[in-house]
Amino acid sequence: MPSYTAPTKDMQFILHDVLKVSQTDTPGYAELEPDFTGAVLEEAGKIASEVLAPLNAVGDTEGCTLENGVVRTPTGFKEAFDQVRDGGWTALDLPEEYGGQNMPYIIYTAVGEISSAANQAFTMYQGLTHGAASAILAHGSEDQKSTYLPKMASCEWTGTMNLTEPHCGTDLGLMRTKAEPQADGSFKISGQKIFISSGEHDMADNIIHLVLAKIPGGPEGIKGVSLFIVPKFIVKEDGTLGERNGVSCGKLEEKMGIHGNSTCVMNYDEATGYLLGEEHKGMRAMFTMMNEARIGVGMQGVAQADVAYQNALAYAKDRLQGRDVTGAKNPDGPADPLIVHPDIRRALLDQKSFVEGARAFLLWGSQMIDQSHRGKDAAAEGIVSLLTPIIKGFLTDEGFDMTIRAQQVYGGHGYIEEWGMSQFARDARIAMIYEGANGVQALDLVGRKLPQDGGKHVMAFFEMVKAFLKDNEGNEALKADFLDPLKAASKDLQQAAMFFMQNGMKNPNAALAGSYDFMHLFGHVCLGLMWAQMAKAAHEGIEAGEGDTRFYQSKIKTGRYYMKRRLPATAMHLARIESGAEPVMELEDELF
Amino acid sequence: MPSYTAPTKDMQFILHDVLKVSQTDTPGYAELEPDFTGAVLEEAGKIASEVLAPLNAVGDTEGCTLENGVVRTPTGFKEAFDQVRDGGWTALDLPEEYGGQNMPYIIYTAVGEISSAANQAFTMYQGLTHGAASAILAHGSEDQKSTYLPKMASCEWTGTMNLTEPHCGTDLGLMRTKAEPQADGSFKISGQKIFISSGEHDMADNIIHLVLAKIPGGPEGIKGVSLFIVPKFIVKEDGTLGERNGVSCGKLEEKMGIHGNSTCVMNYDEATGYLLGEEHKGMRAMFTMMNEARIGVGMQGVAQADVAYQNALAYAKDRLQGRDVTGAKNPDGPADPLIVHPDIRRALLDQKSFVEGARAFLLWGSQMIDQSHRGKDAAAEGIVSLLTPIIKGFLTDEGFDMTIRAQQVYGGHGYIEEWGMSQFARDARIAMIYEGANGVQALDLVGRKLPQDGGKHVMAFFEMVKAFLKDNEGNEALKADFLDPLKAASKDLQQAAMFFMQNGMKNPNAALAGSYDFMHLFGHVCLGLMWAQMAKAAHEGIEAGEGDTRFYQSKIKTGRYYMKRRLPATAMHLARIESGAEPVMELEDELF
Repeated sequence: MPSYTAPTKDMQFILHDVLKVSQTDTPGYAELEPDFTGAVLEEAGKIASEVLAPLNAVGDTEGCTLENGVVRTPTGFKEAFDQVRDGGWTALDLPEEYGGQNMPYIIYTAVGEISSAANQAFTMYQGLTHGAASAILAHGSEDQKSTYLPKMASCEWTGTMNLTEPHCGTDLGLMRTKAEPQADGSFKISGQKIFISSGEHDMADNIIHLVLAKIPGGPEGIKGVSLFIVPKFIVKEDGTLGERNGVSCGKLEEKMGIHGNSTCVMNYDEATGYLLGEEHKGMRAMFTMMNEARIGVGMQGVAQADVAYQNALAYAKDRLQGRDVTGAKNPDGPADPLIVHPDIRRALLDQKSFVEGARAFLLWGSQMIDQSHRGKDAAAEGIVSLLTPIIKGFLTDEGFDMTIRAQQVYGGHGYIEEWGMSQFARDARIAMIYEGANGVQALDLVGRKLPQDGGKHVMAFFEMVKAFLKDNEGNEALKADFLDPLKAASKDLQQAAMFFMQNGMKNPNAALAGSYDFMHLFGHVCLGLMWAQMAKAAHEGIEAGEGDTRFYQSKIKTGRYYMKRRLPATAMHLARIESGAEPVMELEDELF
Repeated sequence: MPSYTAPTKDMQFILHDVLKVSQTDTPGYAELEPDFTGAVLEEAGKIASEVLAPLNAVGDTEGCTLENGVVRTPTGFKEAFDQVRDGGWTALDLPEEYGGQNMPYIIYTAVGEISSAANQAFTMYQGLTHGAASAILAHGSEDQKSTYLPKMASCEWTGTMNLTEPHCGTDLGLMRTKAEPQADGSFKISGQKIFISSGEHDMADNIIHLVLAKIPGGPEGIKGVSLFIVPKFIVKEDGTLGERNGVSCGKLEEKMGIHGNSTCVMNYDEATGYLLGEEHKGMRAMFTMMNEARIGVGMQGVAQADVAYQNALAYAKDRLQGRDVTGAKNPDGPADPLIVHPDIRRALLDQKSFVEGARAFLLWGSQMIDQSHRGKDAAAEGIVSLLTPIIKGFLTDEGFDMTIRAQQVYGGHGYIEEWGMSQFARDARIAMIYEGANGVQALDLVGRKLPQDGGKHVMAFFEMVKAFLKDNEGNEALKADFLDPLKAASKDLQQAAMFFMQNGMKNPNAALAGSYDFMHLFGHVCLGLMWAQMAKAAHEGIEAGEGDTRFYQSKIKTGRYYMKRRLPATAMHLARIESGAEPVMELEDELF
C-alpha cells in the first residue's frame, strides 16, 4: 500500500530561499512569511496523508457507478469531501467577498499539488469547481457572481466545464450543441457533451455546468460559440434550489485511470442556461478556465511523479536484491538494498531532479500569475501565456515518464495492482490528454505564443535567462556545473526559435513539424533555469550557515544531476527541429 | 473496437529483399522461398485477425478467475487454443521427431509477432510452453524428451517457468524453494513461486512446470540452484496421466494488463520433481529458456507497437479535426483528417519507423540464432548473446513508448477502455519488466556481454557496421541520408564503449551509471543499420523495376525519418554516459 508525505520542506525552500516570496512586491505576498506558509502546507499535508491518500486505491478499485441517473462516488469520498470543505480548503485564493480566503494563487498551486498527489481523482471535483468559479468571477454579472460564487467557493456546489462533443474535441468550431434564446433572457440548451469530469455525483447539493453552445443564426465555426451557466438545479431568487434542470448523465466512461472521478456523457435536453459573458465570445470566457486548468494539469503531472517517486524510493531502500559491485553495503544481510545499484539511482535521480525542478517551475509560474493578476503586470502576463503550454505539455509528458520509471523500480511488483504503482501511472496518463492533448499544447506554443506580439514574450524569457547568467557570472561555484550548461541549453533554444522564424514564414510546416520537440527543449531550459536558481539559493544557504546544510547539499547534487544527465536532451531536440518539415511531410498519406 | 492486419508484406520484404534468406547458407533456409513464407505468414495472419484479435478485449475485460484451485480463462480462449493447436501452429520450429515442423527460428519469430500483436495474453500460453520445451530439448534426458516434448509441441500440455519468489526476483541466489532428493531419484519440491505466467488454466490436459530450487547441502547462493520438471499431473510409464502432483495455484494476481493470461502464485508442497540437466547447474539450463524468452519479449514490444500504430493510423485518417495550415485537404468536409497535421505525422512516423526498423532487427537477430544453432556458428552465437539484452530492453522500452504515442493520437478516446488503445499500452508495459527488468538487461549488456571474451562480440558488431559502410561507400543514393548518419551514430557507440573501457576498470560504477543509456544508444545504432540495409534493398528494388515501387519509396522515406529524427538520440546518450559515475553516485542515500 503506497503512502504519501507532502514535500513541505521542499516547497518552503522554493518559496522562501529561491523565490523569496515575502520580500517581493507582488500584492498579497508580504503576508507569505515562512511560518504562515509552513502552517498552511503542513495542515494540507496532514489531510492529504491521513484522509485523501488512503482513499486513492479505494477510488481506483470501486470507481463510480451510475444507476437511474444517479452517480455514486466511491466509499468514503463524500465524507472526505465534507471534511475538506469544512476545513475551508476549497477556495483558498477566491475573493473574501465570495467566501474565499483571498490567498495568492501560488499557495493554491502548492496546496493543489499536495492534494493531487494524494488523490488525483478526488481533487478533480474541487479543481473543476475552482476553474468554473474563476470563469464566473472573470466574466459573470454581479448577479451571477453573488448567486453562484459563495456556494462554489465552499464546494457546496461543484462545477464542470463542457466543451467536447462526440465528433469534436480540439476543433470546437464543429460543435452542435444549440442554445435557443428565450423571452426571459435565458436560453434552452440542447445537445450532448462527452468526457465531462465530475459531471454528476453525490457529493454536492448542486452542480454548475459551464457549457459551450451555439446560438442559432450566429457566426459559423468557433466564432459562433457562447458560454452558458447551466445549473443541475435551478437556483431560485432567494438562493434556494428549485426544480431539476434538463441535464442528466447518460453514461459513465470506463477509463484507464482516475476511476474515482466520474467522467460523464452529459445530455442537455432544453436545459435552462444563462449566458456567461458576451454572445459568441464563449471561447474567450472558456479560456479563462482552460488556462487555469492547464496549469492545474501540469501540476497533476508533477504530483503523480512525486508520489510515485516517494514510494519507489522507499522500496529501493527497503528491498534487498543483489550486491553493490564495489563492495557489500549491507554485509550482514542477505543482499544490499536496491538503491546501491547505479541504474536504480539513475532512475531515482531522473525522478527526483524532475519533480523538484518542475515544482520550482510551477511555483515560479504561479508567482507570475499572481504578478499578472494581482500586480496587473503585462510582462508577467505575457510570460505566463508563453509558459502555459510548456507547463501543461512538458510537465505531464515528463510526469508520466517518471511514474513509469518509479513503477519500474518495483520490478514485477510494479505491475501488480495491489502495490499501487500501476494506479499512479494510469492516473498520470490522462494529464497528457485532457485540457488540450499535448500535441495541441505544442501547436499553441509554436503557432501562437512564440510569434505573439512579434515574439515579445519569448524575447523577454531569453532576457531573463541572460540577466540571470550575467548577474552570476562571477560565481565560480555555479559556473561549470550550472551556468555553462544553462547557457548552452538556452543557446539551443534560441537557435530553434531562429530556425522557426527563418523557415516558418515560407513553410509553416517547418515550424509545426518541430513543435513537439520545441516544447520539450523549452521545458528543459526552464527546468535548467530553475535548478541554477535553486543551486544558487542552496550555496547562499550554506554560506549563511543557517538552515539545513545537508538539505542544501542535496539540492546542489540533484541539480548537478539534472544539468549533466537531463539537459543534454536540448541538443537532440534541436537536431530534430533543424531537420525541418521534409522528413515529417514527404511520406504520402497512402504510404503510411 | 481495434483491428489488426498482419504485416506480411513488410515481413516478406525483410526476409527476401533485405535478408535474402533463401540465398543464404544457413541450414534450412533454402526452403524459405517467398511463396512458402508468404503462405505461412498469410495463414498466420488470418488466424490472428479472425480468431485471436477479437478475443483480445474479451481477455482484458473478463480476465482469469480462480475458484477452488481451478483457473478459468476468458470466454473463447479454450476454443481458440484448440483451433491454433489443431492448425499445428504451436511448434513450428521444434524437431520433427517430437511433432514439430522443424522450421527455422526466424519463421517462429515472424509468426510469433503476428500472434502477439493480435493477442499478447493468449499467445503467452503457447510462448511459455515453447520456452519450456526448448529447455527440455537442450538439457533433458532422452527419456524426458520423449515423455514431454511431443505433448508440449502440440500444446496438449503447456509449460511454465518458475523463478521468482516473494523476496527474490533478479537475485535468485536468495531462493528458498527446496528440492529434497528421494530414493527413486526424484525430488520433493517445496516452496512458493510468484508471477508464474500461465501457471494454472483450463486449456491443457497437463502443465509442465520448470522450477528452480535448491538441493539441501549444495553450494550457497546462485551456484546451488537446480532446475526441475514438475508436472501438474504425474506422467505414468505408459505416457498417460496419473495422480495430481503437489502443486497448486494459491492466488491470481490483479495486474495492470495482460488480464487474459493467468499470473499465478504457485505453491509447491512436496511436489514430485525430476532434475533437468545437472545438479546445481540450474541457472545454465534456465538461461536456455530465458534467452529465448527475452527475444520473445522484445518481439512483444514490437508487436504491441505495431497493432497500436495500425489503429492510430486508421483513426488519424478517419477523424476529421482542424484544417491543414497550408490549405484545406478535405474542403468539402467539415474539417481535414488528423493526418494532415505535422505533429500527428510526427507521432505516426515515430511509430512506423520504429516498428519496421525493430521488425528487421528482430528477424535479423533470429537469423543469427538460426546461424548459431543450426549452423553451429560461434561468431553468430556471440552476436546473439550481445544483442539479446538490446532486443529485450530497447525494443520493449521503445515499444511501450510507441503504444503511448498511438494512444495519444486518439485524444480523449485513447483513455477510454472501449476504444482499445489503453489495453495496448497496459499490455505493452509488462514487457519492460518481465524476463529481467530492463535495467537488468542494461547491466547484462554492459557488465557481462560487452567485456565478454575481451570485447570480441562488440568488436565483431563494429566490424559488421564498418563492412556495410565500406561495401556501400560509392552508393550516392545512400550516402547523405543513411551512411553518414549511421557512421556518426556508430562512432558515438564506439566512443561510449571506449569510455567504459577506460573508466570502468578503475570504477565499475562509471560504466554501470551509463548502462541504460548505452543500451538505448546501441539499440538506435542497430535500427539505424537496419534502416540503411532496408533503404539499400529498396533502392535496388526500384532500380530492378520489379515489385511495388511505391512500397520501396515508402521504405526510403520512412528510413530517412528514422535517420534524421530518431538517430540524433545517440549523441544525447553519449553525453549522459560521459558524465560518468559522479552525478549518479554522489548523492548520499539519506539525502534522496
